[in-house]
Amino acid sequence: MAMKKPLIGVIGGVGPYAGLDVIRKIFDNTRALKDQDHLDCMLVSCPSMIPDRTEFLLKGAENGMENPAWGMFESAQCLYKAGAEYAVVACNTAHSSPIFNLFSRMARESLPGFTVVNMLETCAAFVKESLKITHIGLLAAKGTYKSRVYHEYFREEDGFALIEPEERGQEKIHEAIYSKQFGIKIYTEPVKPQAKNHIACEIYRLEERGAKAVILGCTEFPLAVDPQDFSIPILDPGLIVARKLIALADPEKLLA
Amino acid sequence: MAMKKPLIGVIGGVGPYAGLDVIRKIFDNTRALKDQDHLDCMLVSCPSMIPDRTEFLLKGAENGMENPAWGMFESAQCLYKAGAEYAVVACNTAHSSPIFNLFSRMARESLPGFTVVNMLETCAAFVKESLKITHIGLLAAKGTYKSRVYHEYFREEDGFALIEPEERGQEKIHEAIYSKQFGIKIYTEPVKPQAKNHIACEIYRLEERGAKAVILGCTEFPLAVDPQDFSIPILDPGLIVARKLIALADPEKLLA
Repeated sequence: MAMKKPLIGVIGGVGPYAGLDVIRKIFDNTRALKDQDHLDCMLVSCPSMIPDRTEFLLKGAENGMENPAWGMFESAQCLYKAGAEYAVVACNTAHSSPIFNLFSRMARESLPGFTVVNMLETCAAFVKESLKITHIGLLAAKGTYKSRVYHEYFREEDGFALIEPEERGQEKIHEAIYSKQFGIKIYTEPVKPQAKNHIACEIYRLEERGAKAVILGCTEFPLAVDPQDFSIPILDPGLIVARKLIALADPEKLLA
Repeated sequence: MAMKKPLIGVIGGVGPYAGLDVIRKIFDNTRALKDQDHLDCMLVSCPSMIPDRTEFLLKGAENGMENPAWGMFESAQCLYKAGAEYAVVACNTAHSSPIFNLFSRMARESLPGFTVVNMLETCAAFVKESLKITHIGLLAAKGTYKSRVYHEYFREEDGFALIEPEERGQEKIHEAIYSKQFGIKIYTEPVKPQAKNHIACEIYRLEERGAKAVILGCTEFPLAVDPQDFSIPILDPGLIVARKLIALADPEKLLA
């Protein structure tokens, strides 16, 4: 009898195109000469169940807004029932403690044998293993900055300095994601030049302030940024975790 | 209590990028100003369970090769367990009778309330309603030609003429999909110029032979063709069925 192949799950919808982007990166990084060589994957993109993560972190908890963790857990249940062994949540802000701790506790307690791969932890491990740098720029959504979740992985006492845009830059980045005129959440195919420019400009500023690499800490940013346009490494946690998932499911399939 | 939102399922993996493409087209054609406006969708991309459809149709049945319908049905069961109401199979060749009849019978008998939307039937209905044409070019994989599945929807006795590439053209098109040097199944990001050229050339030939529109009858072709590059309508069954799924799940969300 053939061994059942491992099934990789992606919790998407946060936003929808970001989830799709992570799945695409799994395909792009898989050694495959035909359909059947590709890894079994599943995308649950149910945004109707998952409130905006940044809104929840900025003002939701006090206003009785539902924790996005519940919808993320419902998505995880879908993947679990379908037989997924591994899953990732395709949203940086969702990894902030007030959301992710509840989500991962529910998954651990209710879904035996189901491994939630932490995208931020995976990204941080990659940076520490592959790049000998201490000064790292962080582009993120406001909720991610407020929660300081990346600081848990790059601690000052370990010699790391996370460089964040100044307040005006954070506003610009927020607009690049959420603006009704040009934000990536609305305009994805194609991304509007204003959104691209806002992000590129903040990458340059982070570099001027000493960043030796920049983390694209929101899964919408890779849709708008080509890392080859910059002289320092641009780190995409979605790409890093896609490669990690391949390595977990079938290491021989991981493209160099 | 909030009404449960309809969940749209896509049976992908046939091939993987084609499944992704149909999901992206659902997102692209949805009226959405924020994540939560998007429709709930699910992609099951389990190519390890589904043998090559063309290979099965050309030589598989005699050689005891497993019918792809079984793996498609396993994928449908995943979607059903997760709560999907509608599903489409993101592969034209999979709609050929020897595969699709078995698949849809199993789904009908075992998955109550689960609607399999037939991509080819949907495409044919769109052509008949929207375009007043009788001469239609068909680009497809060899298995699709052999099965004559599109002829079931465009019948000669109803006045339709399906124009197919000549034998050499069919070989070229087969290479564009399957070639180990430049086929779309291997080289998707980006698609190789040879694959694009082979397909474009056959579109021109079909037009010369009287086609008033050309159906991209393999879900890999839309990855390689920009309809704006041609003077006749280029019909993408994946796009047409994506719009149909939105109309079924929530017609107000369908972009004009």
